[in-house]
Amino acid sequence: MVASVEKNQRHQVVVIGGGFGGMYTAKGLASANVDVTVIDKRNFHLFQPLLYQVATGTLSPSDISAPLRSILSKSKNTKVLLGEVKDVDTKTQEVILNDRVVRYDTLVVATGANHSYFGNDQWKEVAPGLKTIEDALEIRSRIFNAFEAAEKETDPQKRRALLTFVIVGGGPTGVELSGAIAELANKTLQEDFRNIDTSETKILLLQGADRVLPGMAPSLSQAAKASLEKLGASVQTQTRVINIENSVVTYKQGDELHEIASKTILWAAGIQASTMGRILGLRTGAECDRAGRVIVEPDLSIKGHKNIFVIGDLANFSHQNEQPLPGVAPVATQEGEYVAKLIQKRLSGKTIPAFKYNDYGSLAMIGQNAAVVDLGAIKLKGFFAWIFWLLIHIYFLIEFDSKFLVMFQWAWNYITRKRGSRLITGQESLTLAKVITKQPTIEKTVKV
Amino acid sequence: MVASVEKNQRHQVVVIGGGFGGMYTAKGLASANVDVTVIDKRNFHLFQPLLYQVATGTLSPSDISAPLRSILSKSKNTKVLLGEVKDVDTKTQEVILNDRVVRYDTLVVATGANHSYFGNDQWKEVAPGLKTIEDALEIRSRIFNAFEAAEKETDPQKRRALLTFVIVGGGPTGVELSGAIAELANKTLQEDFRNIDTSETKILLLQGADRVLPGMAPSLSQAAKASLEKLGASVQTQTRVINIENSVVTYKQGDELHEIASKTILWAAGIQASTMGRILGLRTGAECDRAGRVIVEPDLSIKGHKNIFVIGDLANFSHQNEQPLPGVAPVATQEGEYVAKLIQKRLSGKTIPAFKYNDYGSLAMIGQNAAVVDLGAIKLKGFFAWIFWLLIHIYFLIEFDSKFLVMFQWAWNYITRKRGSRLITGQESLTLAKVITKQPTIEKTVKV
Repeated sequence: MVASVEKNQRHQVVVIGGGFGGMYTAKGLASANVDVTVIDKRNFHLFQPLLYQVATGTLSPSDISAPLRSILSKSKNTKVLLGEVKDVDTKTQEVILNDRVVRYDTLVVATGANHSYFGNDQWKEVAPGLKTIEDALEIRSRIFNAFEAAEKETDPQKRRALLTFVIVGGGPTGVELSGAIAELANKTLQEDFRNIDTSETKILLLQGADRVLPGMAPSLSQAAKASLEKLGASVQTQTRVINIENSVVTYKQGDELHEIASKTILWAAGIQASTMGRILGLRTGAECDRAGRVIVEPDLSIKGHKNIFVIGDLANFSHQNEQPLPGVAPVATQEGEYVAKLIQKRLSGKTIPAFKYNDYGSLAMIGQNAAVVDLGAIKLKGFFAWIFWLLIHIYFLIEFDSKFLVMFQWAWNYITRKRGSRLITGQESLTLAKVITKQPTIEKTVKV
Repeated sequence: MVASVEKNQRHQVVVIGGGFGGMYTAKGLASANVDVTVIDKRNFHLFQPLLYQVATGTLSPSDISAPLRSILSKSKNTKVLLGEVKDVDTKTQEVILNDRVVRYDTLVVATGANHSYFGNDQWKEVAPGLKTIEDALEIRSRIFNAFEAAEKETDPQKRRALLTFVIVGGGPTGVELSGAIAELANKTLQEDFRNIDTSETKILLLQGADRVLPGMAPSLSQAAKASLEKLGASVQTQTRVINIENSVVTYKQGDELHEIASKTILWAAGIQASTMGRILGLRTGAECDRAGRVIVEPDLSIKGHKNIFVIGDLANFSHQNEQPLPGVAPVATQEGEYVAKLIQKRLSGKTIPAFKYNDYGSLAMIGQNAAVVDLGAIKLKGFFAWIFWLLIHIYFLIEFDSKFLVMFQWAWNYITRKRGSRLITGQESLTLAKVITKQPTIEKTVKV
C-alpha cells in the first residue's frame, strides 16, 4: 500500500463518485481554499437521464459522457484519481483504495444506487438493469440481436418470444425504454427485415403501482399510458412479477397469474444503494434504510460525523417531505452544490441553513413528439412537452460539445427516423479474448 | 442444422463479409435480377480508415459504422444474415454457417485480413492490432489508462514506461496512430493532469523499411516523418522488432540492439489473411500466398471455379503490377463493383474485360493541419493535404448522417482541441461478468 506522498497542508476534501452529486460538489469548490480529490472507478461523468437512448440506439456512449479530467481541468485545486474505494477509516480520516490511502478532512460520498431485484438476484442476468454504459450496450445488443434472431427463426412460437419485450418498472426509465423500443419496432426498423414484420413486436410494460410515472400528476400518468399504447406498447399496472425463468415471465394481477414468453426482459424497478452505504453504516454507525441508503442529517452529514456527507442516490434525506427525496439528477446536483457551499462557510467559521430541495418538476419522454412535463403549476404533454424535454436535456448536458452533437443527432433522427447507433458490439471481444487465451495460433477464426 | 426454407428460383448470390468489398458487391447488385444474401458476424459496416480516430478518442464507434440492414434496406433483393461461416461445400454449392446452410449460385468472399505477428503470436496480447471496433476500444483504454496510471505512479522509472508508447509498423495506420497519440500528449491532455507533464511522453514509431509510408512518394515519406517529429514522435526506420517481453521492446537497427520499456505497445505491421483463405484453398485447390491471401484470376475468380470470387484484403491480385494490389478500401470497393457488374453481364450471356484498379492516390493524416496526399501527378503536404484528407473521408463515409456528424465532431475538435470520446469502457463489464458469476449477492461492489 502506497501512502499519499503529497504534503497535505490545505483542508483536504475527498469526493467519492463522479456522478451528479460528486461533480457538482467538486465544481462548487473550484475556487475554494481547499484541495479536492475526486475518486471514481471510471474516467468519465455519465449523463444518466439519457442512458436509455444509448440502450435503444439513438446516441453513442460518448454523446452522454465527458471525461472527468476534462470537466475539472480548469479547477486547479482538484485532482481526479481513478480507483476503487474499499473502506473508510474514520479514526485516521483515510479512504482506503485498492492501491493507496487518501487522507481527508472532509469526506463527501456520492456513489449512487443500482436497481433492486427484491431478493431475486438470479434475475439479474436474464433481466439486466440500466445504470452504466456497459449496461446500455448490453441492452442494446440484446434488443437488436432479438430482431436478428427473429429474422432467422422459422418456428413461429420461438419467433414470437423473440419479438416480445418485457419491461419491468413503470418509472421514467421503464416508460422511456418502452416508448423507444416501440418506436424502433414500428418505425425505425420497418424497412430493414425480409422475413419478419417488426410491427408485430409485442412490448409489455409491467408496473407495480396503479399508474406509470407515480412521481407525477395522475393526468400525466394517463397521458403517458395513452402515448405508449398509441405507439404499440401494452401497459399493465398493479402487476407484480412473481418469477422469471427459462425466458418466461410470470406475473400477478389481483389474483390472476399470467405467463408470457420473452427473450428480452429489461429491469427498471427498485433501488439498492451501492455498498458504500453498508461500509459507512459499519464505520460510522449511520442508520441505513431498507434500500441501503444512508439516513442523513438536515445538513446532509452523517449523525455524529459532521465532516462526512452523503449525497445523491446513496442518501436518504427525509427532512423535507415524509418520503425521502427521489433518486434523480436534480436532487444530487443541488445536494452537491449545498455541500460545497457548506464546506466553504465552515472554513470561515460560519454555517448555512439546512438543505432544501427546490423541485422544479419532472419530465419523461415517451416517443417522437410525445413527452410529459410536470412543473407543478404547469403540466405539458405531447409535442410541446417533447420540445421542452429536448431543451432541458440539452441545457443540462455538462459538456458543451456534447450538447451540440446530441442536438444535431436528435434533429437528424427526427428528420430521417434513423438511428445510427445500432451497433451490436462487445460480444466479439469476449469471444476473442477466449480464443486468444486458449488457441493463440487460430486468430479471429473465420472473420466474416 | 436448419436448411434454408426459401425456394431459390432466382440466381442466388451469396456475399461473405460486409466490409468495403462485400458492401459494394451488394450495392452493385441492388437492381439486378438476382437474390443477394450478405453474411457477416457483425451487424454493421465499419469505415476502417477512421478506426484509429476511435482508438485515440476523437470519434465514437457509431460515427464510423452503419448498420448493414440500414445501408441495404432499399435493396429489396438483398437479405442480411448474421452468422459465422464455418466452411464452403463447392459440390453442393453451399455455405455452411454455425446454425444453417445457404445455397449459392455465385459466391463472393470478402472476409479481409488481420495483422501478422510474423510467427510471434504471443505478442498479440501485449501489442494489440487495430482491425475491429473492439480493438479500437481496447487500444483507447490502454492509451488513456497509461496516462491515468502515470498520474498515480511515484516511481520515476515506472512512470517513464507508462509515458512511453511504441508503435510497430510505419504504414498509414502506424503513422496516423503515432501522430494522434503525440497530439493527445502534447496538446489535448496538457491541462488535465496534476502530477505528470504529458509533454514528457515518448512516442516511438518503429518501421522495418527505410522510410514510413513506403506506398507513397519518397518526398511525402520525408514530409510525414518531419511532421511526426514536429509533433514530438520519434521515427526509427530500418528497425526490426526482435522481442516483446515484460513490457520491454527489443529492436535491432543494423547490428545494434536497443531496448525500451513501454507499457503501451501497438501493432500496425504485417498482413495475415482471414482463415476463409485457408478454407477456400482446401475446398477449391486455390493457391494462397505467404500471407494466406487467395491468388485470383484476372476476373477475380478462383482458378477452375468461375462462380467463386475473392475480393478485398483476402485477395492477391497480381495481374496489374508485379506487386499484389494493396489492402486498402479503394481496391476492395472497385473489386466489389467489378464483380457485381460481371455477375450481371454473365447472366445475360456476356462478359467484361479483366479487372483493372484505378489508383487515384493515397493519403495519410499525421495531425491537425498536417497530412500527406499522393495523387501521382499532384502531391500535397501540410494544411492543404489535411483539408483534402478531411473532405475525401467525409465524402466516402457511406451513411449520410455519419458524414455530417463526423464533420461536426472534427470541426469542434479543431476549434476546442478537445476529444470527447475519451471514455475508458469495457473493463468494468468484464469484471462485473465475473462478479455476477461468482458472487451473485455482492453486486457491483463499491460503485464509485
